[in-house]
Amino acid sequence: MSKAKVTPWEVKGVVDYERLIEEFGTNHLTEPLIKKIEKAAKKSHHMLRRKIFFSHRDLEIFLKEHEEGKSVALYTGRGPSGNTHLGHIVPWIFCKYLQDALDIPLYFQITDDEKFLCKDLTLEETNKLAYENALDFIAMGFDPKKTFIFVDTDYAKTMYKIAIKVAKKVTASSAQAVFGFDNSTNIGMYFWPAMQSATCFLPTVHQKKPTRTLIPAAIDQDPYWRIARDVAPKLGYPKTAAIHCTFLPSLLGPEGKMSTSEGSHATIFTTDTPDEVKKKINKYAFSGGKDTLEEHRKHGGNPAIDAAYQWLTFFEEDDKKLKSIRDNYKSGKLLSGELKAILIEKVNAFLKVHQKKRELARKHIDKFILKD
Amino acid sequence: MSKAKVTPWEVKGVVDYERLIEEFGTNHLTEPLIKKIEKAAKKSHHMLRRKIFFSHRDLEIFLKEHEEGKSVALYTGRGPSGNTHLGHIVPWIFCKYLQDALDIPLYFQITDDEKFLCKDLTLEETNKLAYENALDFIAMGFDPKKTFIFVDTDYAKTMYKIAIKVAKKVTASSAQAVFGFDNSTNIGMYFWPAMQSATCFLPTVHQKKPTRTLIPAAIDQDPYWRIARDVAPKLGYPKTAAIHCTFLPSLLGPEGKMSTSEGSHATIFTTDTPDEVKKKINKYAFSGGKDTLEEHRKHGGNPAIDAAYQWLTFFEEDDKKLKSIRDNYKSGKLLSGELKAILIEKVNAFLKVHQKKRELARKHIDKFILKD
Repeated sequence: MSKAKVTPWEVKGVVDYERLIEEFGTNHLTEPLIKKIEKAAKKSHHMLRRKIFFSHRDLEIFLKEHEEGKSVALYTGRGPSGNTHLGHIVPWIFCKYLQDALDIPLYFQITDDEKFLCKDLTLEETNKLAYENALDFIAMGFDPKKTFIFVDTDYAKTMYKIAIKVAKKVTASSAQAVFGFDNSTNIGMYFWPAMQSATCFLPTVHQKKPTRTLIPAAIDQDPYWRIARDVAPKLGYPKTAAIHCTFLPSLLGPEGKMSTSEGSHATIFTTDTPDEVKKKINKYAFSGGKDTLEEHRKHGGNPAIDAAYQWLTFFEEDDKKLKSIRDNYKSGKLLSGELKAILIEKVNAFLKVHQKKRELARKHIDKFILKD
Repeated sequence: MSKAKVTPWEVKGVVDYERLIEEFGTNHLTEPLIKKIEKAAKKSHHMLRRKIFFSHRDLEIFLKEHEEGKSVALYTGRGPSGNTHLGHIVPWIFCKYLQDALDIPLYFQITDDEKFLCKDLTLEETNKLAYENALDFIAMGFDPKKTFIFVDTDYAKTMYKIAIKVAKKVTASSAQAVFGFDNSTNIGMYFWPAMQSATCFLPTVHQKKPTRTLIPAAIDQDPYWRIARDVAPKLGYPKTAAIHCTFLPSLLGPEGKMSTSEGSHATIFTTDTPDEVKKKINKYAFSGGKDTLEEHRKHGGNPAIDAAYQWLTFFEEDDKKLKSIRDNYKSGKLLSGELKAILIEKVNAFLKVHQKKRELARKHIDKFILKD
């Protein structure tokens, strides 16, 4: 087993989430805390029940302030380096739950600047992708009255003013330590953590009152907010809170996360056709089944390493259904191909609705976009 | 004599301008080139005749393109760390000559972001100073139809888009080599050369056609544009040209330049009263005269180290008048106090008109300001 590498730009190897909590210095999302969220939300969520969200920072404070009627907001985002895939929408599904539950503003940052600076893409390309990605976010059903989407370069007048206040408090050596920058890194990337951090404080500026943010995001994004949390008291802003999820695993197997950079052949995009989804899952989804039918019927499959099963833990909300799939797979009753067929049906049912909403979102996108 | 130190933030010691040309790799402003400017301008300028402007980069190309009717523009600026003093307006006087002469657009960048990032000032302070400084610039008499003033943070949406294109091409080690940044420098300063460089390319974006810029500025600002010139071909922009002037010397003596950071007691601000000007010059202007009246009458003064005389080379346009002052001072006919009185009268006459125009400018500033 290779040692996992987890940075905001790369996830390699089998991720040991327990070790990440220790390394990153975050806290376990404990049962009492899950209960608190569910109480505030007045309903449960499968991503909490299944520990897909597993770690946090200052979530207690955030929930307490919400309870006390203080100003709080959600913040998540997207780096527009390509089309949206199913891995990206995992935190968004949870954001939708939280926004509905807590009835609070949500800020969605699309970082066309970062993806331009760190990828072999033009700014025109990342900016165009930004607005395409925004459609996927809107398609999740967010309330336009309290959901504020912005694309960094098109909201730079507001963002730059906040970002330089952050930047003044962050030395090059901090940025190097947190992000692994070196002398060959371009000066745009050096500055960029300040733009990312600025979003933690944007709600305070935008709501015109101190507003604590909660960031639901995959754990690899945590380093950005360590900087934001460090500078918050120096700038007089509330420290941002965070709630971290695991990665949607790669279809190809239990190492790394689903990522377009590993090749789009095994990535399921929100714009894929039913046939593409079927082909990708059938061809690439790493199987936890046995080599022969006979063996499988006898010994059963291993859901822990089976990509199709792992994906169902993210997308099949019904605990009973999931348990029955698991039991049948482990017992050998359910074959790997049949398990894949269940996932294909689930994904295609989701995408059918999503793609309709996504096209509808083109007409309504202006209601969501913050511009200078 | 201490070895001079010349960086964009500090000028110390007696500056050897010949050595700077060699060190910075710029070119002498030769007589044939001065003739070319004067021919294009259809008139002479005392700052050219007296080699106050003494160095350049690619000025021939700039003048040739102007002659051929290609799009060219001027670019200068101001770092708003305090009130405007007479040292700041030296390049502006020359800009006014060039704009009138060549009939071309002029871009004026006010860097409230930089001064916030590198000084102990709030962004609110540098932003306020920016608009105060702009009044001094407008008071020089620029044409609002072709003069575009912008304050970085209020034009950041436009500037950031250009700046990140520059930033992607500049590594941290380049920025360290050119600006002397180290690991303790804040990440805003690391990025900032990209904002400065961006102005070289702004005219191309704003005029919607390739536009070569010419930067009249004191030579200590040259490093910024070395980066801009390096990246220009990579981004498909014309390389910016520059014309460099010497520093208005400190009143306190022949070392360094006039600078507010050395204490405002010996700095003449554009908002000073006639009495303040009189007191500062009488009290602080370093004298090249002899210690006793007798000695002075016998041996005469030394204009080369006399601050009042040196200042007159910047502000007294009439060559004959200046020569007669010089001759009389050298011969001992003119006393140090009398020389100071000439400068006081000259400066106060200038400021009387300037301050009126400066107040008028408050009403017209909007005609000049570029905003996103």
